[in-house]
Amino acid sequence: MRATDVIAKKRDGYELSGSEIRFMVDGLLSGEVADYQMAAWLMAVLLRGMTDRETHDLTRAMVESGEVLDLSDLAPVVVDKHSTGGVGDKTTLVVAPLVAAAGLPVAKMSGRGLGYSGGTLDKLEAIPGYDVNLDRERFMACVREHGIVVSGQTADLAPADGLLYALRDVTATVPSMPLIASSIMSKKLAAGADALVLDVKVGRGAFMETPEEARELAELMVRIGEAAGKRVTALLSDMSQPLGCAVGNALETREAIETLHGKGPQDFSQHCARVAGEMLYLGELADSPEAGARRADAMLADGTARQKFTEWISAQGGDPRVAEDLSLLPQAPLVRSLPAPIAGYLAAMDARTVGLTAVELGAGRQKKGEAIDLSVGIVVRKKVGDPIAQGEPLLEIHARDEATAEAAARRLHEGIEIADAAPQPPPHLWGVVRSRDQG
Amino acid sequence: MRATDVIAKKRDGYELSGSEIRFMVDGLLSGEVADYQMAAWLMAVLLRGMTDRETHDLTRAMVESGEVLDLSDLAPVVVDKHSTGGVGDKTTLVVAPLVAAAGLPVAKMSGRGLGYSGGTLDKLEAIPGYDVNLDRERFMACVREHGIVVSGQTADLAPADGLLYALRDVTATVPSMPLIASSIMSKKLAAGADALVLDVKVGRGAFMETPEEARELAELMVRIGEAAGKRVTALLSDMSQPLGCAVGNALETREAIETLHGKGPQDFSQHCARVAGEMLYLGELADSPEAGARRADAMLADGTARQKFTEWISAQGGDPRVAEDLSLLPQAPLVRSLPAPIAGYLAAMDARTVGLTAVELGAGRQKKGEAIDLSVGIVVRKKVGDPIAQGEPLLEIHARDEATAEAAARRLHEGIEIADAAPQPPPHLWGVVRSRDQG
Repeated sequence: MRATDVIAKKRDGYELSGSEIRFMVDGLLSGEVADYQMAAWLMAVLLRGMTDRETHDLTRAMVESGEVLDLSDLAPVVVDKHSTGGVGDKTTLVVAPLVAAAGLPVAKMSGRGLGYSGGTLDKLEAIPGYDVNLDRERFMACVREHGIVVSGQTADLAPADGLLYALRDVTATVPSMPLIASSIMSKKLAAGADALVLDVKVGRGAFMETPEEARELAELMVRIGEAAGKRVTALLSDMSQPLGCAVGNALETREAIETLHGKGPQDFSQHCARVAGEMLYLGELADSPEAGARRADAMLADGTARQKFTEWISAQGGDPRVAEDLSLLPQAPLVRSLPAPIAGYLAAMDARTVGLTAVELGAGRQKKGEAIDLSVGIVVRKKVGDPIAQGEPLLEIHARDEATAEAAARRLHEGIEIADAAPQPPPHLWGVVRSRDQG
Repeated sequence: MRATDVIAKKRDGYELSGSEIRFMVDGLLSGEVADYQMAAWLMAVLLRGMTDRETHDLTRAMVESGEVLDLSDLAPVVVDKHSTGGVGDKTTLVVAPLVAAAGLPVAKMSGRGLGYSGGTLDKLEAIPGYDVNLDRERFMACVREHGIVVSGQTADLAPADGLLYALRDVTATVPSMPLIASSIMSKKLAAGADALVLDVKVGRGAFMETPEEARELAELMVRIGEAAGKRVTALLSDMSQPLGCAVGNALETREAIETLHGKGPQDFSQHCARVAGEMLYLGELADSPEAGARRADAMLADGTARQKFTEWISAQGGDPRVAEDLSLLPQAPLVRSLPAPIAGYLAAMDARTVGLTAVELGAGRQKKGEAIDLSVGIVVRKKVGDPIAQGEPLLEIHARDEATAEAAARRLHEGIEIADAAPQPPPHLWGVVRSRDQG
C-alpha cells in the first residue's frame, strides 16, 4: 500500500477501506507515512467527508494505536463523561464526587487543555497539595479505595490521536465532523469506559456554534459509540453565555465547592445534576435519567457529595480544608467590578468574549505548555434575562494588575447587551441524543 | 500573516490575495511555512480550485522565487517551446536545430524528467561526448556563436516550483489544472522567453487523456502567458499512440537524426515542422504558422537543419559523425520482433502500454535520480489505420536480455488491437489555442 494512493482515493471522493485507514494511522506513528502526506489526507477528509464506517474505522485505528485500559473489575458498568469544552465548564469537579458518592466509580484521566481557561487538571491544582501526576499503581489504588481518582495521563492512550491533533491544529484541518468525533471518541474508548455521557456545548463560546452542528456531532459520536458496543448519551447544552458564573481556574474551583454546598448558581447546579443523572442511569444505579438527576440533587443538598469531594482531595494529597475554607484557594490581587451603564434586562453575556478576556487575563493557554495564572478570571453576576439597575455590578474582574483589568473591562463591554424588554433566555439544554440500546 | 489562516481561507473556498499566495510560496522556501502546511494547502487548492488571478499570482510568485534569465540581446523575439510529455516525444532534437538554422536562437535548459523514457538530456547523452553540464559562460557562448544550446539547468529557475512539485508528487496533489499550469509556466517564464509554443499532448499516453482536459490546460496556460505579457500558442497533439516510431533514448535520437535526413516517420516529421512553424511565426521569421511550417519542411528536406544539428552537437563536445553514422549510438544487445497474430488493420497501439513497457525495459525512470539504459526501448512498425498481414512485425523490442524482452512482449500484446475493418486514425492535431495578441 502507498500513502499517495490512499490520499488520491479520498481526494477523488471514494470510501476508504478499514485497512487503508489503518495504514495511514499506523504509518504516521511508524514514520512510513510522512506528516506532509497525513496533512494532505486530512484536508481531503475534511473536504470530502467520511462515511460512518470510515469514521468508526479511524476511531478504532487510533484507539488501537496505544494502550486500552481495562477497568472491568471496578464495577459492572464503568461510565465516563466528556465535555467538548466551553466557558466556565467546571462540571467534572462536581459530578465526579457526586456520582462516586452514589457508588459509580470514577477513574478519570484528564488534560490541561487549551482554550478559555485551564483544563480540569489546572482547576484541581488550585487546591494546595493536590497531585495530578499519579503513577499507574496509585491511580488504581485511589479508585479502588475511594471510588474516585482524577489524574493526568498514566497511560499512552490513543497516541495517534495526539499526533493527528497536533497536525490538524497547524494545517487548518480541525473543523471536520469525522475528525472531531473520532478524536474525542478514540480517547474515551481507550480509557476503558463501558458507557459515556457526552456534554456537547452549543453556542458562541463553544466549538459548535449552532444547535444543528452540535446535533450532527453528537449523533455521529453516539453512532461511533454504538458501533464500538458502548451505551452513549449526548446532552446538547447551552454555551451562549458562560456556564454558572465563574470563569478562571481557582474561581471555578471555588464555584464547584459552593455547588457541593448546595449554594451553586442555579444553571450550573442543574447541569451537574443532569449530567450525573445520565451517568447514574447508564451505570444502572438509577431507573431513569430523571431519577438519577433527582438523586444527584438530593446528594448536593445533603452534603453527601461534598463528603466524597473531601475524601477524594485528601486521597490525592490535597488540603481537604479547602471544602470549608475557600480562602485557601489562590486569589487575584485585584478585584474590580463592572457596573451596568444603563438599566434594563441582560440580553447577552457573550461566552466567547468572556472566554477570550479570561485568556488575556492569564487564565487560559494560547499554546500548549504555556504557564497560566490560577487566580485570575471573571465572575459574571447576571445571567441573560435578569433585570438590571443602572450602576449594578454586571461582573467582577479578578486580575493581576490595573492594566490587565482595564483592558479586560474594555473588551468585556463588547460582549454585553442590555435591552429595554426582558429577552427570552436561551434553554439550558438544546436536546439529548441517546444510543439505540437505551430503553 | 499565518499559514493556518491562508489554508483555512482556501479550504473554505475563498479567493486568496496575491500577498497571501506569495506568503505561502516564499514561506516554503524560507521555512516559515512547513511542508505539512503546504501539503494541506495544495490539497485545498486541488479540491477548491483557483481563479485565473490566483493562478497567475502563484505563477509569478514561483518565477520570482529565483533567477529570471534575460535573453533579450540574443534576438528581437526569443521563442521557447515546451511539451507536456508523451511517449516517443523527441521533438526538441529536431525542432531546435531546425529553427536555429532559420535564424531563431535556441537557448534551452532541459531536464531529465520522469516517465516513459528519459528527458531530452538523456536522449542527447546517447550521443558520445555530448556535454549537458555547461556552465553559464559556455551556455551563453554556445548560443551566441551557434544560435543553439541545450543544456541542464545553469540557473536556479523557479526553485519554489521544484519544492512544490516534489511535495505534490508524494501527496497526491499533482492533477490540478492551476497547479500544473503554474508549474509549467513558471519555469518557462523564468527561462526568459518572449514567446512560447506549448505542445499539449492528448490521449492515453499523456497526462491529459481527453481533448477537453487538454484544451482546458492549454487555455489556462495561454491566459497565464497573456497576463505575463507573452505571446503563446498551444498545440493539442495526439498521444493515443506513440509519436513517430521510436520509444527509448538512443532509439529516439536515431529517429530524430533520420528525420533530419528527411527520412523520419511521416507523423513525426509533420509534427516537427508544425511546431517549428509556430515558433518561426512567433519569432517573426514567418508571416504565418503555415508559412513557417513550409519553410521548416524545406529545411528538413534540403539538409540545412541537419547541418545545424552537426554544428550544435560538435559545439557541445559531441561526436558530429553521429549525424551520418547511426552505429555510433548505443545499441541494445537483443532485438526481438513482435509479429501480428492475425491479419487486419491496426486499431490501437496504446501509447500508455508502450510507454510503461519501455520503463520496464529500463528506458525510463520511476524515481528521480534512477539510472536508465540508453540503448533499450521499442520501435513500432505500424500506426493506427495501417493494414496488417498475419506474421508481419508490429514492433521491435530492444532489450537487455531475453527475460525482459519476453516480459515486454507479453505486456505489449495488451496494448495492441487489430480490427477487421480499417479504423479512423486519430487526428495528429486536436486543436490550437493562441493568445489574443496574435493577428
